[in-house]
Amino acid sequence: MSNKVSVLVAGSWGTALASVLAMNHNNVVLWSRNFEQVKEINEFHTNSKYLPGITLASNITATTSMKAAVENSSAVILVAPSSAMREVTSELKNYWNKDMLCVHATKGFETESLKRMSTVIAEELDCSEGDIVVLSGPSHAEEVIRRCPTTVVVASLNKSAVERAQELFMNSYFRVYTNRDMIGVELAGALKNIIALGAGMSDGLGFGDNAKAALMTRGLAEISRIGVELGANPLTFSGLAGIGDLVVTATSQHSRNWRAGSLIGKGNKLDDVLESMGMVVEGIRTTAAAHSLSIQHGVQMPITDQIYNVLFKEMDARVAVETLMGRDPKTEMENIRLETWEQWHT
Amino acid sequence: MSNKVSVLVAGSWGTALASVLAMNHNNVVLWSRNFEQVKEINEFHTNSKYLPGITLASNITATTSMKAAVENSSAVILVAPSSAMREVTSELKNYWNKDMLCVHATKGFETESLKRMSTVIAEELDCSEGDIVVLSGPSHAEEVIRRCPTTVVVASLNKSAVERAQELFMNSYFRVYTNRDMIGVELAGALKNIIALGAGMSDGLGFGDNAKAALMTRGLAEISRIGVELGANPLTFSGLAGIGDLVVTATSQHSRNWRAGSLIGKGNKLDDVLESMGMVVEGIRTTAAAHSLSIQHGVQMPITDQIYNVLFKEMDARVAVETLMGRDPKTEMENIRLETWEQWHT
Repeated sequence: MSNKVSVLVAGSWGTALASVLAMNHNNVVLWSRNFEQVKEINEFHTNSKYLPGITLASNITATTSMKAAVENSSAVILVAPSSAMREVTSELKNYWNKDMLCVHATKGFETESLKRMSTVIAEELDCSEGDIVVLSGPSHAEEVIRRCPTTVVVASLNKSAVERAQELFMNSYFRVYTNRDMIGVELAGALKNIIALGAGMSDGLGFGDNAKAALMTRGLAEISRIGVELGANPLTFSGLAGIGDLVVTATSQHSRNWRAGSLIGKGNKLDDVLESMGMVVEGIRTTAAAHSLSIQHGVQMPITDQIYNVLFKEMDARVAVETLMGRDPKTEMENIRLETWEQWHT
Repeated sequence: MSNKVSVLVAGSWGTALASVLAMNHNNVVLWSRNFEQVKEINEFHTNSKYLPGITLASNITATTSMKAAVENSSAVILVAPSSAMREVTSELKNYWNKDMLCVHATKGFETESLKRMSTVIAEELDCSEGDIVVLSGPSHAEEVIRRCPTTVVVASLNKSAVERAQELFMNSYFRVYTNRDMIGVELAGALKNIIALGAGMSDGLGFGDNAKAALMTRGLAEISRIGVELGANPLTFSGLAGIGDLVVTATSQHSRNWRAGSLIGKGNKLDDVLESMGMVVEGIRTTAAAHSLSIQHGVQMPITDQIYNVLFKEMDARVAVETLMGRDPKTEMENIRLETWEQWHT
């Protein structure tokens, strides 16, 4: 089998995953539409917009040609933003074949259709969704590229594919677990960004660690709830793609979602925040998607509702958090993975 | 019913809880053996060793007399360190009667007997353990006293007692949920300190957010596992006393357990760390207790074992973390609340 692996596209996470693969002796090709970025990677071995100060391994090259990137690869790693995934995969189809392992590491839904990434990819590649592998877990790109100890999970219904993915990525600092619950891993990875936004808002408001921990605890219960409704195993939400990723995303300044939430909590407008950050903030699109899914499936998601109101309905963030805090006395088990959530709604 | 409430003893958490009670129009009496501290509280309305820079409400007074503190109170709040709980409660018995609500907010085990705090209290007061109420959750004293939004859980088998406790403490910034699973709430609150120590070690070693999130995810699964063995409801570990408190303890610099772990991760000796901190670090005693419990009950607790080795067997912290990271490829569900934990042990 070829030791060439393609990574589409060359953002911070794509480049970090490329560095893991390069450590494992692969010939890694990054694809990007941006000619200047490709030139920089090939000439200077840097990707300074996304990972400033980092030198990339010499077995990482880049190209603007999808054909050159993908042909003769044994595996394709898809790390496009959720909004670009269909377009990128549609182009990939011209060069992809079923012998190539397909792993994606994108957290989010397709905005209009509310489809998971593996569904979008399978539709475009005309393959079975069960053969796609998703990679997720607590893994800031900035730490992975510095070889800090990191654990992730790869999930697929296809046992051979998921084991190939585990073998492809695993090394001394990047520990890879397998899981069969691809739906749960995809949903946990996407939905936790909503709670990370909320945690950022709470911090931006200066509400402290106690308030943030409460929001994260209830938030996790809430995203597990919609996850189970959509076919996930609830245990997955207690694993690396759930609690693990929520912790790292909601408590770290590396996190774009936390940072965006924090700026909004401080009173900035959404448009200004997005402009100042200059990168995709997946949690914002995911909040809109989850809000629609909760209505579609009749599942109450009170924290998501409040964050949606702040992002899209000009609700004051302080009012939103206070609304969540200020309810009648309740028992705890009413809202932890059980079926009654009235304390947020009565 | 008297509106007098007694709080034993006047450490940071006891004083913070006293401030919540004082906000709710109670006559609050703090008990301490330390005459200078009592004098400071009564004369200057400060408790500067534990909560520097904070002025206490005027309806909080202090005394060195247990009799004066407890007589005619409607409720007694026990916040002694776990190592002092039996002695304090034994003295309390002389003045306590069954009409007084008894709430404790101490996280830990009795060292030699490995008993939970409610067991120790019930033995000394000669009352039913089911009538004791435990208060726990993500709640740094420093934030509670500044009236940051905080949520906690109170648990007891006695419905009337737990509802009295909820009513006693609840106010606009201190939100109190009830739970029947007193064993689970006590165990989660105590055991999470082990994982907070481990998270501190990981941070002290400079391992980053990814490693810490992995440790917390697996750590929570591990403490749930022993908790269930000891009679807890696993859902409690997904609630405020479990995940909630773990997040706040393992990611905040307010946390003594995190701080102690961090200093050890940086290469300091346990004795020096304890001396420099000058306060009780419950997680250290709890690690020893949990290590014994895991052997007694035949439950594997690999993270606890490694932390125990670092604390008491002079194992290098880096070796301990690397041991946990460096195992053969595994599936995720082998170690998430399921019965097989071989990946840490094979």
